[in-house]
Amino acid sequence: MRFQLVTLLALASSTLAQLQPNFTSPAGVEIYNPSSFFNTTGPWSLMSQAGDTLYIAGRYSIPLTTRSPTTPQILTKPTPGMRGIYQQNSTLAPTGLPRIRQAYENMRDLAAMAGAELIDCVRLVVYTTDMFRYRPMCNQVQVELWGDDPSRYPPRTIVEVGRLNEDDIVEVEGTFWNPRKSGGGGR
Amino acid sequence: MRFQLVTLLALASSTLAQLQPNFTSPAGVEIYNPSSFFNTTGPWSLMSQAGDTLYIAGRYSIPLTTRSPTTPQILTKPTPGMRGIYQQNSTLAPTGLPRIRQAYENMRDLAAMAGAELIDCVRLVVYTTDMFRYRPMCNQVQVELWGDDPSRYPPRTIVEVGRLNEDDIVEVEGTFWNPRKSGGGGR
Amino acid sequence: MRFQLVTLLALASSTLAQLQPNFTSPAGVEIYNPSSFFNTTGPWSLMSQAGDTLYIAGRYSIPLTTRSPTTPQILTKPTPGMRGIYQQNSTLAPTGLPRIRQAYENMRDLAAMAGAELIDCVRLVVYTTDMFRYRPMCNQVQVELWGDDPSRYPPRTIVEVGRLNEDDIVEVEGTFWNPRKSGGGGR
Repeated sequence: MRFQLVTLLALASSTLAQLQPNFTSPAGVEIYNPSSFFNTTGPWSLMSQAGDTLYIAGRYSIPLTTRSPTTPQILTKPTPGMRGIYQQNSTLAPTGLPRIRQAYENMRDLAAMAGAELIDCVRLVVYTTDMFRYRPMCNQVQVELWGDDPSRYPPRTIVEVGRLNEDDIVEVEGTFWNPRKSGGGGR
Repeated sequence: MRFQLVTLLALASSTLAQLQPNFTSPAGVEIYNPSSFFNTTGPWSLMSQAGDTLYIAGRYSIPLTTRSPTTPQILTKPTPGMRGIYQQNSTLAPTGLPRIRQAYENMRDLAAMAGAELIDCVRLVVYTTDMFRYRPMCNQVQVELWGDDPSRYPPRTIVEVGRLNEDDIVEVEGTFWNPRKSGGGGR
Repeated sequence: MRFQLVTLLALASSTLAQLQPNFTSPAGVEIYNPSSFFNTTGPWSLMSQAGDTLYIAGRYSIPLTTRSPTTPQILTKPTPGMRGIYQQNSTLAPTGLPRIRQAYENMRDLAAMAGAELIDCVRLVVYTTDMFRYRPMCNQVQVELWGDDPSRYPPRTIVEVGRLNEDDIVEVEGTFWNPRKSGGGGR
């Protein structure tokens, strides 16, 4: 367990070292759209950091690695011929659990690229289109990812909304504490 | 008035002194689930602090003191025999005002335990299931709690959502500025 | 371009210099309701700053300059005689685009008064009452305001809600990084 933590921290540090912001504002806001992930499908970014706080956009649950940086549109308008790929990646799985897990994992992976762990999350807002069906699945995924120690979960607000982008079922927006070691950026 | 303020500040400081986080991440995120309140009913926490910012989850309006730390489930599935208790505590009151007041007071009480006052709130998001019925009550409660000086209210966004946890009518999510006096924690 | 930037920064600095908070809490939270804008229609404020972070409430899309600081109620209950004014200001325009543009511009103008630019935005939450109709318009407005460089947009979460204040169609809530030059306020 301790070894795992050290390994994770080392991994996070090395990842942070190579992750460069796509843009830095004069005031010090860093915008991140990691090229190893995917292009966003509109005028928004995946992640930002300012000072010691990291903000990750609520993201829908298509596996990050299946998205093409050059042709994102094929994923927003899937054709029948693409279905096998989606099912293979659980994107269109009939049960909601894999999709919800993917949403949380996308957030986790983005945070890790910036050097933050799930236990550094200070705030979660979960938007779902069906409280009764999907809230228990969110709970299950959070236990999987954070573990079952009840003192480590972040404060969370969950609400049922009418619709999400691309008719997804859950979006998770996260704010993380990610102190800068070097004092650079917006400090 | 001035005496009140000093008293409040002293109270807040002494409260802060005894409130210990349930967990602190290596990066400095503190998670709070005060044992004098109640256990949460899922994998989420009541409050976190990182740096000088305090985050409080949107909470439903069951009075904090009626929740049992060991048997939270009896509150999520009330039996007929429990109804008297709820009514006595206004939880199931037919009018929404006491429940909404409770939601705001829960947030206020949690902030106070961490050393922050309502006038240290920097951001509110209010989720309600009926804008027309409950927004005026939210307004009334905020005037009760913040007073009627129009310059002291925090920025607020209020939206009508389809459903809240446990079919509550209002949830209030708050972010507070709570500077650390000692420079400890995540600094 | 560089000249523009310098001009903007100079403008922002001079604006900041004259914008005084309406209230400052003992802990250092500054509440802003600029008198040149309008009175809010309830117990909430337009903007707050604490530390280096600026929070702007989701605002509905009535042009800021048409609001009367002394008689805000006439704008929440428009009479037939007022309609011409609203149409002239695009408030009741049948197409949603001008209203959505106004919502974003209100946020931009408030941020500018505090010294922050759009590229200092670290987080956006967009609430809309119709994802299919209004999300493309939000995208269009963001490209107009932020430009078409895909690396400059803030992380954004967009959800469809049941209702917004005064039956508006879009609200935009923004968080900005706005480092204090003087080290005053909450630092």
